[in-house]
Amino acid sequence: MNYSFAGRMGSVQKSFIREILKVTENPQVISFAGGLPNPKLFPVTEISAATIKVLAESGDSVLQYSTTEGFLPLRQYLAARYLKNRGLTVDPDEILITNGSQQGLDLIGKVFLDQGDGMAIERPGYLGAIQAFSMFQPQFHPVPLLEDGVNITALAATLREHRSKLFYGVPNFQNPSGITYSGPNRREVADLLQQHDTLFVEDDPYGELRFIGNDLPSLKTYLGDRAILLGSFSKIIAPGMRLGWICAAREIMEKIIVAKQAADLHTSFFVQRVIYQYLADNGIDSHIARIREAYKRQREAMVSAIERHFPDGVQYTKPEGGMFLWVTLPEGISSLELFDLATRANVAFVPGAPFYTDGGGADTLRLNYSCSDEATIEEGIGRLGEAIKKLLTL
Amino acid sequence: MNYSFAGRMGSVQKSFIREILKVTENPQVISFAGGLPNPKLFPVTEISAATIKVLAESGDSVLQYSTTEGFLPLRQYLAARYLKNRGLTVDPDEILITNGSQQGLDLIGKVFLDQGDGMAIERPGYLGAIQAFSMFQPQFHPVPLLEDGVNITALAATLREHRSKLFYGVPNFQNPSGITYSGPNRREVADLLQQHDTLFVEDDPYGELRFIGNDLPSLKTYLGDRAILLGSFSKIIAPGMRLGWICAAREIMEKIIVAKQAADLHTSFFVQRVIYQYLADNGIDSHIARIREAYKRQREAMVSAIERHFPDGVQYTKPEGGMFLWVTLPEGISSLELFDLATRANVAFVPGAPFYTDGGGADTLRLNYSCSDEATIEEGIGRLGEAIKKLLTL
Repeated sequence: MNYSFAGRMGSVQKSFIREILKVTENPQVISFAGGLPNPKLFPVTEISAATIKVLAESGDSVLQYSTTEGFLPLRQYLAARYLKNRGLTVDPDEILITNGSQQGLDLIGKVFLDQGDGMAIERPGYLGAIQAFSMFQPQFHPVPLLEDGVNITALAATLREHRSKLFYGVPNFQNPSGITYSGPNRREVADLLQQHDTLFVEDDPYGELRFIGNDLPSLKTYLGDRAILLGSFSKIIAPGMRLGWICAAREIMEKIIVAKQAADLHTSFFVQRVIYQYLADNGIDSHIARIREAYKRQREAMVSAIERHFPDGVQYTKPEGGMFLWVTLPEGISSLELFDLATRANVAFVPGAPFYTDGGGADTLRLNYSCSDEATIEEGIGRLGEAIKKLLTL
Repeated sequence: MNYSFAGRMGSVQKSFIREILKVTENPQVISFAGGLPNPKLFPVTEISAATIKVLAESGDSVLQYSTTEGFLPLRQYLAARYLKNRGLTVDPDEILITNGSQQGLDLIGKVFLDQGDGMAIERPGYLGAIQAFSMFQPQFHPVPLLEDGVNITALAATLREHRSKLFYGVPNFQNPSGITYSGPNRREVADLLQQHDTLFVEDDPYGELRFIGNDLPSLKTYLGDRAILLGSFSKIIAPGMRLGWICAAREIMEKIIVAKQAADLHTSFFVQRVIYQYLADNGIDSHIARIREAYKRQREAMVSAIERHFPDGVQYTKPEGGMFLWVTLPEGISSLELFDLATRANVAFVPGAPFYTDGGGADTLRLNYSCSDEATIEEGIGRLGEAIKKLLTL
C-alpha cells in the first residue's frame, strides 16, 4: 500500500536504543544499556494504599475528565518544593502536568519550533530530546560538553554564528554523560543565553539524585522567565506512571496549555490523584534518600570495578549523582565493535554515536548503574574489561 | 517578555468550549454543555480491586518503563473484541495504546500532515479533532452532514476539487450532532474515498453506546488498510484514565510508533495494567449495557421535554446512541444570544458556531444528555424552552 506521510517523518529514525534493548531481553545478558530506575525501590505498597484511598474518597471525580493544567494541589506541592529545595519562586499556574517530561519536550517543540529554526543542544545529547524536537525539523547546533559542563567558547561561537531559539540541556548528571555543570559554568551559560536571547530548556529528571557534593542552583535562578524547567516523578517515584511537569512563564504557559489540550486533553487524572495522595501521605524525602544511597553504592561499585578491570587509556566520568557514567575508549577502538564482542560475552551497553547529531563519538559509550546490584556490576564490568582488552590486542 | 513562538501557534485559538464550561462551574447552573459521561456509572469499586491486584502481583513491572505500543494482552483483548463485535480482523500489532483517542488524533496529524495539506472533515465537526489537526496547519475542507450521514454530493465535489489526504469523521452518534451514517451512506463514503485515495480517520468513541436500532459496519470493513480506526475507554469505563487506542495498517503503525515514542515514550503502564485487569476480571458487556440503558432513558427524557417545551420551528436530531443531540433554532435566532439569555436562567449548552471551521451554524447548538438525570433534564429543557420563546418575541 502506498501512503503519503508528512515530511517530518522522513527525518526521524527508529530509536537505535530501542533496537539495542532487544538484545538485553535475554535474561543471560547483564545490561548496562537501559535507563531504568531500580524497581526494587518502587513504593508499591504505598501506591496501592494511595489508590484505595482516593478511589474510596472521591472515585467519581478521580475517574472523570479534568483540567488541562493538571490537579491544582499537585501543582501547589511542586511549587512549594521548588521554593523549599531550590529557592525558586514559582506560581502553581506556571506549572503544567505532563505524561513524563518526554511530553514536555514534545510540547515545547510544538510551541516554539518552526521548520529550520536553530536550536542548540548538548554534545553528546539526550536521545529522547533529539527525537522529540526532530519532529519539528529544527536545525540542531551541538555544543560540546567538558568535564565541568558546557564548553563556553563553543557555546559563545555557536550562539554568535547561528540564531538559536532554544538551548536544550541537562545540567545535573546529564544523560548520557553523567556530567554536571559547575557553579561558575552555570553562570557563564546563563550570561551567554541572555546575551543572545536564547531560551534555556532545563531538563532536570535526576536533580534530586545527588549522592556526592552539594546541590547547585537551577539555571532558572539566573534566567527567570527565559528558562523552561522540566521535572519528572519517573526517577524518584516510578516511570510506569508517566508523570512529569513543565514549569514556564505565564505567557509561554498559555501556549503550552493550548498544545497540551490538542495533544491529549490532560494527563491521566487517576495517576495525578494517586501520586498526589502518595506524596501527601508519605512525603518523598526519605524515599529519595533511600534511592540516593542505593545508587551511590552502585555507582561506587561500578567506578571501582572499572578501575580494576578496564585497561589503561580508558577514560570515564565520575558522576556525582543520577544514573549514568560515560566511557571514552582508547583511540582507534570503536564502541560499536566493542558492542558486538560484549554481547557475545553477555554484557550490554549503549554505544555513544547515536548521542551525536553531527557524527562522532565512535569511541564512546554509556553505562547505566541504577538498575544492577553490586555483584552484577562487578561481574558485568569484568566481562566488559575483558572485551576491551581483546579489542586492543586485535 | 518577548517570545518567538512557532507559526502553528498563531492559528490555534483557546478552546471556546473551555471558556463556556467556566460558566457551568456555578452549581446553580444546569449544564447540557459538557461532554462528560455520567460519573454515577463509573466502576469505582472494581477499579480499586483491579489496582490492588496488579500492584500485589506485579508491582515492580507495573511501575516500570514499558513498550511504546502498549501492553500486549490489552491489545490482544481489543483485537479479539473487534473480531467478535464488529467482524473486523485486526492483528494486535496493528493496535497502539494512546492517552485517550485525542492523542490518536495528534499522532495521526503528526504522521500525515504537512503544512497546507488538504483534509476533509465533517461540518459541523468535532472540536477536539479540529484543534489537534490545526497544530499541523492543514487546509480543512468541511463536508456537510445530513440526517443519514455525509452529504455524498458535497463529499464527491470536495474530493474532486481538493486533494484530501485524510477525511476525519465520527460515523456513530457524531459529536456534536448525534448523527449516524446509515448503512448505504457508509458504502458510498467508502467508495468515494477509495476513488480519491483518501484515508478515512474513523473516530469511534461512542460506537458501543447504541440504544436504538442495530450496529452498522465500521467503514474499515470496506476500506481495510485505507481506514485508521480510533477507540477509547473514556465513554465505556472512565475518561479520567485517559486510555484509548489507534488501529492502523502496519506500515502506518511503524510511523505512529516513532511519533508516539517521541511524544511521551508510552502511555501510563500503571493505567494500562489496571484497565486490563478490570476487563479480565469483570468483562465489559454488562457494564456497557447499564450505560446504554441509562443514556437511553436520559435521551428519551430530553426528546420528550423538547417536544413539550420548545416552540414550533425548532428542529433537532434524534440520536440512536451516544451522548449528544443537535438543535437548529428557527431562522434568525442566534444561539449565542440564546446562550446569554439561558445562562441568566441558569441553564447552559454549547453554541454551534465553533463546530464550523468555515463560518456558519449561528442558529445551531449542542445539548448533552449523558450527564444529567431525568428530572434535571426536564427542568433544564423547560428553562431553555422559555428562553427560546422569549427570543422569538423580541
